[in-house]
Amino acid sequence: MSTLNPQRTVDELKELRRLTGNEDGAQRVAFTDVWQRALDWYKETLADLPVEIETDEAGNLWATLRGESEKELLIGGHLDSVPNGGWLDGCLNVIAGVEVLRRIASEGKPPITIRLVNWADEEGARFGRSLFGSSAVSGYLNPDELRNLTDKDGIKLVDAIAKYGVDLDRAKEAGKQLKNAKAYLELHIEQGPVLESLDLPLGVVLGTFGVERHAIRFVGQAAHSGSTPMDKRRDALGAAAKLALEIREIAKRNGGVCTVGRVETKPGIVTAVVGQCDMTLDQRHLDAAALAKMLQEAKDASERFAAEEKVTVEWNKIWEINPILFDPQLIEFADEAIKEASGSSYRLPSGPLHDAAEVARAGVPTIMLFVQSLYGISHNKIEDTKEEHILMSVDALDRLASKTIKWIQGQ
Amino acid sequence: MSTLNPQRTVDELKELRRLTGNEDGAQRVAFTDVWQRALDWYKETLADLPVEIETDEAGNLWATLRGESEKELLIGGHLDSVPNGGWLDGCLNVIAGVEVLRRIASEGKPPITIRLVNWADEEGARFGRSLFGSSAVSGYLNPDELRNLTDKDGIKLVDAIAKYGVDLDRAKEAGKQLKNAKAYLELHIEQGPVLESLDLPLGVVLGTFGVERHAIRFVGQAAHSGSTPMDKRRDALGAAAKLALEIREIAKRNGGVCTVGRVETKPGIVTAVVGQCDMTLDQRHLDAAALAKMLQEAKDASERFAAEEKVTVEWNKIWEINPILFDPQLIEFADEAIKEASGSSYRLPSGPLHDAAEVARAGVPTIMLFVQSLYGISHNKIEDTKEEHILMSVDALDRLASKTIKWIQGQ
Repeated sequence: MSTLNPQRTVDELKELRRLTGNEDGAQRVAFTDVWQRALDWYKETLADLPVEIETDEAGNLWATLRGESEKELLIGGHLDSVPNGGWLDGCLNVIAGVEVLRRIASEGKPPITIRLVNWADEEGARFGRSLFGSSAVSGYLNPDELRNLTDKDGIKLVDAIAKYGVDLDRAKEAGKQLKNAKAYLELHIEQGPVLESLDLPLGVVLGTFGVERHAIRFVGQAAHSGSTPMDKRRDALGAAAKLALEIREIAKRNGGVCTVGRVETKPGIVTAVVGQCDMTLDQRHLDAAALAKMLQEAKDASERFAAEEKVTVEWNKIWEINPILFDPQLIEFADEAIKEASGSSYRLPSGPLHDAAEVARAGVPTIMLFVQSLYGISHNKIEDTKEEHILMSVDALDRLASKTIKWIQGQ
Repeated sequence: MSTLNPQRTVDELKELRRLTGNEDGAQRVAFTDVWQRALDWYKETLADLPVEIETDEAGNLWATLRGESEKELLIGGHLDSVPNGGWLDGCLNVIAGVEVLRRIASEGKPPITIRLVNWADEEGARFGRSLFGSSAVSGYLNPDELRNLTDKDGIKLVDAIAKYGVDLDRAKEAGKQLKNAKAYLELHIEQGPVLESLDLPLGVVLGTFGVERHAIRFVGQAAHSGSTPMDKRRDALGAAAKLALEIREIAKRNGGVCTVGRVETKPGIVTAVVGQCDMTLDQRHLDAAALAKMLQEAKDASERFAAEEKVTVEWNKIWEINPILFDPQLIEFADEAIKEASGSSYRLPSGPLHDAAEVARAGVPTIMLFVQSLYGISHNKIEDTKEEHILMSVDALDRLASKTIKWIQGQ
């Protein structure tokens, strides 16, 4: 009977990097030749295991280790990367999952069925639509919104995926893969600075943030910077600057995050008071009510500032998504697993979305583990995690899998 | 003996508008055919007066009414306009000056010489260099800075003005025109909202603002809007927003004006904390020490905000000019003339520069009168002034000319 060998995971991650990266970073963009190379290598890696391999209608690759029961534990990640991406984002969990499968398989037929899934096109780097494979499985994918998306060379998504055997109109048939799923586990790098700043290797993810994303326009009066006294101005930038500062207080007060990412001024010349100021606002919170409160507070503040500056304000929604919460029991198991693997645990929300969010909203009890990211940086070749932390993360995932198998068994 | 007829000025302004404007506004851009048409009409208007007409080396057109003494009173304005400009900006004083010349000439040979000057290219609309003719006369024009300026069609300034008989390298020889000048008067629309807000037709201009114009760059760290907690951010926009608000307090505290006209954010996307924020700052004050203090206060504030936000700040000067103060005795005369013409007077600085500033810095005692602008708007076809206020302004200019002639006579 073999025991878990997390060092093998690190070695395999480095091998994958050699095969599918270059001096600019990882190049495993979904539905490309390099991605196919990663898939081929992955299948070879699975060849020694007693698993059935299957590609579903959405291009997701499933490795199934049959157990005594049809009830299933799913472990999932994604081999695809952004162009010039990092060596861990997504593939860490696929490769760590292989190691967990090896440990379980070495102990004989497991009590329940274990499945490792490689989701197709998590990043959406080529066509701008992330979570392709997992949203097909969850049922939230809308083929008509994707059909005419093109890459930078004008190639349509529908044609690009057909080359890899995926028929857009049949992709959602992959939803049947979740029929027997009783839990879903995903280990991922944090892609943020929280764990590093706390000097902690691992954290339990509570869920993914809900997002409210809006465009805000203040309109005052452009006026000559020399001939217009301060008290005669209707300064659109004045209102926008006040709001840019106030949203930070709103975020802190409510425990979420708020970001003004873009500001544009018109006429935008050095000699004119700003007549129109456009800004974007991105608000995120794990709690739907708190997110709604942050939005309302920002709207109220914008009206107040508009009145103070004698300008008008107008809001337009860009996008929104509800918070997606992970499973309370799995949060407890993850907490225990992390404590056993690394000494202490921490609970944090995820800012970015992940495939796990799609599985969770399909109704499968779901949990994620985060491992510390250095510098809080991802989607970049300098993305990195300390090797000792990667080793701990594989151990934690394995411990979490054992606890979850027992839990499913008892259901 | 004819008396002053301000109504004739209004009629002539309307005639000029018909000849050189269209449905989009005035089109008298300097060194163009329409400008030449305005000059030709202007010369015809002067034909009945006993004046000598002369174009100097910089393209300025001088009409000289010889007096008993060589000592000269100058009255000046500009017939050129921006494209799609207003009907009064610049030409009001040329046409009002003609009426004043008529009144003086009708009374016989004046005690001193009176000269009306039409400055060439005050607006700088075609080549981006304003005050061409008056700065040639003042000596502040630098031919080498202008030689390679081009218009939007790629035509060089040096070639465009040659078509109108102006040799760039000889333009400053026009400086000799000021040899006998003892005072300079200029009536102009305010181009701002101050007199309108005070319900006053006329004001005395104390001088033109000094200007400090800078580009300011804050650099923090771009970061994911979802995965970066508020207290882990180095938000360049945070510092910029604080400064955009603080410069307004600095302006009010010091009695000047400060304007942030442009803000640019990078990467400038909805999902990223702003890593770099560029902004422009335009500061103006009539007092050089107060202007320097406003600049220092803004710099100090920017350093303070940069430290608070854990970002860096860098300043780059775009342009500066010292305040130019008008003559104290002429300010008193102008005050009296305005009170006689309209009941009450008001003293205010000029935000925009004017030809008068060039004459003043050449050492000629100078004064300007402002007449109320409706809506505070100029450089636009909707630029306007109530007819009754135009009539009062011609009367005030004439009264000011009489007082100034007496003053020069007594020197």
